[in-house]
Amino acid sequence: MAYDDSNVFAKILRGEMPSIALYDDEMTYAFMDVMPQAPGHCLVIPKFPAENLFDLDADYAAAMARTVKKLAPAVKKAMDAPGIMIAQLNGAEAGQTVFHIHTHIIPRWNGIDLKLHAREMADMDELKAQAEKIKAALN
Amino acid sequence: MAYDDSNVFAKILRGEMPSIALYDDEMTYAFMDVMPQAPGHCLVIPKFPAENLFDLDADYAAAMARTVKKLAPAVKKAMDAPGIMIAQLNGAEAGQTVFHIHTHIIPRWNGIDLKLHAREMADMDELKAQAEKIKAALN
Repeated sequence: MAYDDSNVFAKILRGEMPSIALYDDEMTYAFMDVMPQAPGHCLVIPKFPAENLFDLDADYAAAMARTVKKLAPAVKKAMDAPGIMIAQLNGAEAGQTVFHIHTHIIPRWNGIDLKLHAREMADMDELKAQAEKIKAALN
Repeated sequence: MAYDDSNVFAKILRGEMPSIALYDDEMTYAFMDVMPQAPGHCLVIPKFPAENLFDLDADYAAAMARTVKKLAPAVKKAMDAPGIMIAQLNGAEAGQTVFHIHTHIIPRWNGIDLKLHAREMADMDELKAQAEKIKAALN
């Protein structure tokens, strides 16, 4: 499958769409999910044009893992969440909806039953407040 | 939380319990999940005593990602699965049941609605046949 650079996350990486930033380095970027499954739900994406894990460079896969490893404890602490689910969906049949590879970091309180359908936009002020907490916990 | 090395995956790493191997390198090991959510469901674990992502060494987090990146296309090909879900659960509240960190690679055909409860043991001969397919696709 050819990567389509008109997807939302490609636009975010190019600065053509806004996002609530959490972390930024040479190979990865992390920001708040605007359709969160739980308070503190955020995303890590590579600065690499890959639709999914299959066309991602292995060094970027490793870099994503390092960023997730940095960010997950900050999300846990900021949200006071007992559990954290890390998920990365490849293909519409696996629930992928934006076709730039991304890893979800999702605080969990009661098991892993996820409903990634019928999602709604979050309140932006709430997201920004959560982001401030996460960034504070990251530092 | 202190790592408890009596968990099932620690025993598998020490060779005290059997497993159906898929891939093995210096830092990681991959094998079939015996309570699969779908045909081809397998696990990647680090050769490092960590309960979860929070106490895992970052180099091992990166090594796990590289092994997942190697194995996922083989699982997809072997199982002829349109989608692949990657999931890593931290804490009982996130659905974690074995307290040695592990990443799930799960073929998906119809979205991500997962039921990680009420699981049953798989037929070992079926698992072994799937493992042979995955290893063939890996090579």
